[in-house]
Amino acid sequence: MSVLIPERILLGPGPSQVPARVLEALGRPTVGHLDPVFLRLMDGVRDKLRRLFQTENPMTLAISGTGSAGMETLFVNLLEPGDRALVGVNGVFGGRMVDVAERCGADVSRMEVPWGRVFDPEEVVRRIREERPDVVALVHAETSTGAHQPLDGIGEAAREVGALFLLDCVTSLGGAPVEVDAWGVDAAYSGTQKCLSCPPGLAPVTLSSRAVARLDRRERKVQSWYLDLTLLRSYWGQDRVYHHTAPVNMLYALDEALEIVFEEGLEARFERHRRHHVRLREGLAELGIGYVTQSGHELPMLNAVEVPEGADDAVVRRRLLDEYGIEIGAGLGAFKAKAWRIGLMGHASSERNVALVLAALERLLD
Amino acid sequence: MSVLIPERILLGPGPSQVPARVLEALGRPTVGHLDPVFLRLMDGVRDKLRRLFQTENPMTLAISGTGSAGMETLFVNLLEPGDRALVGVNGVFGGRMVDVAERCGADVSRMEVPWGRVFDPEEVVRRIREERPDVVALVHAETSTGAHQPLDGIGEAAREVGALFLLDCVTSLGGAPVEVDAWGVDAAYSGTQKCLSCPPGLAPVTLSSRAVARLDRRERKVQSWYLDLTLLRSYWGQDRVYHHTAPVNMLYALDEALEIVFEEGLEARFERHRRHHVRLREGLAELGIGYVTQSGHELPMLNAVEVPEGADDAVVRRRLLDEYGIEIGAGLGAFKAKAWRIGLMGHASSERNVALVLAALERLLD
Repeated sequence: MSVLIPERILLGPGPSQVPARVLEALGRPTVGHLDPVFLRLMDGVRDKLRRLFQTENPMTLAISGTGSAGMETLFVNLLEPGDRALVGVNGVFGGRMVDVAERCGADVSRMEVPWGRVFDPEEVVRRIREERPDVVALVHAETSTGAHQPLDGIGEAAREVGALFLLDCVTSLGGAPVEVDAWGVDAAYSGTQKCLSCPPGLAPVTLSSRAVARLDRRERKVQSWYLDLTLLRSYWGQDRVYHHTAPVNMLYALDEALEIVFEEGLEARFERHRRHHVRLREGLAELGIGYVTQSGHELPMLNAVEVPEGADDAVVRRRLLDEYGIEIGAGLGAFKAKAWRIGLMGHASSERNVALVLAALERLLD
Repeated sequence: MSVLIPERILLGPGPSQVPARVLEALGRPTVGHLDPVFLRLMDGVRDKLRRLFQTENPMTLAISGTGSAGMETLFVNLLEPGDRALVGVNGVFGGRMVDVAERCGADVSRMEVPWGRVFDPEEVVRRIREERPDVVALVHAETSTGAHQPLDGIGEAAREVGALFLLDCVTSLGGAPVEVDAWGVDAAYSGTQKCLSCPPGLAPVTLSSRAVARLDRRERKVQSWYLDLTLLRSYWGQDRVYHHTAPVNMLYALDEALEIVFEEGLEARFERHRRHHVRLREGLAELGIGYVTQSGHELPMLNAVEVPEGADDAVVRRRLLDEYGIEIGAGLGAFKAKAWRIGLMGHASSERNVALVLAALERLLD
C-alpha cells in the first residue's frame, strides 16, 4: 500500500472500531457473486438482518452502498413525483432526507425542532393526521446531534392515514432496540459502520408488505436503476437474476459482524451500550462537560457534548489523534466548533475505551 | 463466518481472482473517512486512477458502489430531462445504458448491431453528425459478448457537434489500452473487480473539463443525491466536505491493486492479457471451440465462446466448479446456454490458468 495504516481507536460518529474477526472475514478469497456458497451466505445475512431489525419482512437485504445509499434507496422506491412526504428535521440527516425526497419530485413538508431536540411524538401524530402524507420520515438516532427520537404512536398514525412510516436507523441499529414490526415501521435503512462494527460499504434495508405493495403499484420506473428494489429483489430472492456484481467481500464482513451480534445477544448488546454511555456521561460531568442533546433523549452510542469553554475544538481533536490515536467527531452544521461527538458504537463500546478517552481528555483539557 | 469460503479460480466475467496482497490490504484496520492518513490514500488513488485512464482530468475518483453505480453516476450527472442520448446497443450493457438514460428523462436514440458484433466507427460518426446528440455512449468492452469496440474518430465527431462522449470501460480498464484524453472521451467509468483484480465495490470514474462544464451549467439538481458529483467533488477535492462515509477498506484494496498495476506497467500488462488470450484461443480451437464474437474484435480479457455441440452448458459449468473449483461465466440474454464467458482478467491472466481451464474442459468435454 502507498500509506501505512495506523491502528486508531475509533470513537467518532463512524466508522467504528472493526474487530479482528470481521477484518479477517473481509480478507477471505473473493468468490463469484453467483457462486452457490455465496448465495448461501446472502441467505444467512438476510435472515440475520431480519432478526436485527426485529421483523418478518421478506424484503430485507443489504444495498451495495453506504448508509446514505440506503436512505436514497427507500425514497426513490417509495416516492413518485407529486407524492407528499412529511419529514422531521432536527439535524443533518433529516435535512438530507428532505433533499433526497425533493430530488424524487416529492412535495415535502418539513417538521422542525432545534438541533439537539427530539420531536414530541404526539405532535408528529397530530401533523400526520392533519397532513395525511404518503410517507412520513424520521431519524431514529440523529448522528449529528446525539438525539434519540421516541416513536410512540407514530406507526399507528401512519397506518390510520395510509402513510408509509420510514425510519433512519443508521446509528441505532445493533446498539439500541429497533423493532420494525412492533413499531409499525414500513421501511428502515441502516449502515454497517456504526453499531455493527463492520467497515462502511453496505446499507441494510427492510420493507414491510405495505411498502412492497406501494412499490408494486408504482406508475413509473424507479429513477435509480442501481437502487431499484423491483430488480434487486430478483437477485436477493429465489430467482437470483443477475443485477449488479455484489460487493462480495463486504458481505463476508457483514456476515461475520452479524454472527458476533447474535453471539452476544441483542439485549446484552443494548445493555452494554447503555452502561458505557452512563459511565462516559459521569466521567464527562466530572470534567465539567455536558451534552448538547435534549436531556433524557441522549443516544447511548453517540454522545454529542459541549466543547468546554476555553478549549480549542480542532486542537484537542488533533492532539487526541496524534498523541493517543483516538478519533472523536467534530460538530456539524449548527454544532460546528461547539460540539464533539464521542461514539461508543458496537465493538468500541467498552470500559477500556471509556477510561481511555476520559483520561486523554482530562490531560488535554488540563 | 456462517459458511466456509472456498478458494476458487475465478475465470468468469468478474469478479476476478484477487491477489493475496490486495486481500491483505482490504483487511487492514479501518480508520476514519476524514483521517489525514486516509485522505492521503485517497489522493494517491486519484493520481493512480488518472494514470490508468491516461488522463489529466482533475475530476477522477472512485464512486462508492459497483461498476453499475459508475454507469448511473455518469448518466444522472450529465443528462437532464429532454436531453438527447445516442447509445450503442450490442449486448447487455448497452441495453442497460439505455434503461439508465431513460430513467434520467433523456430522449434516447438506439444504435444497434447484433450481439457479438461491434459498431463500425464510421457509421457511429455518421449517426453523431446526423443526430447531433447531447451525449453519445458506447461500451468499450461488452462483457456479455466479448466484443472490443473500435473508437476511431468518435471523440472528434462528438466534439464537432458539441456532444459528450461517454465510455463504459468496466471490463477493459487495466487489461487493454483506455486512453481517455487521446481518444477524446469525456466521461468514463469502470469497476474494480475485472482487470484490476480488486474485490467488487468501487467504480472508478473520470470526467473531462467539457463534462464538468456541462455539470456546472445544469438547470436542476442531479436526481441522485448519493451519486451527485457536484457534492462528491468537495469530498474528493481540497475542501474535504463530508458527503457520505467512504468505504474505507475497499479503498485500501483499490490502492494496493493499483500499486500492483503500476509495478507491472501498463504496456506489459496489456501484452500479458493479449498473450494469454492467444494461448487460450489456440487451445480452444484444438477442442473445436470457436468464438461468438465478430472475428478480429475479440476482447483479450473476456473470451465469449460457443458451447460445443452436444455439451450441456450448465452441467459443464457446474462440474468445473465442483471438481476443479473453476468458475467460468454463463451466456446472458441472446447467448444464454449458447456461450461461455471465460475471463482472463488481471491477476488471473496467466499461463497456469490457461493450461488449467483447457485441461479441465478437455476432460469434461471428452
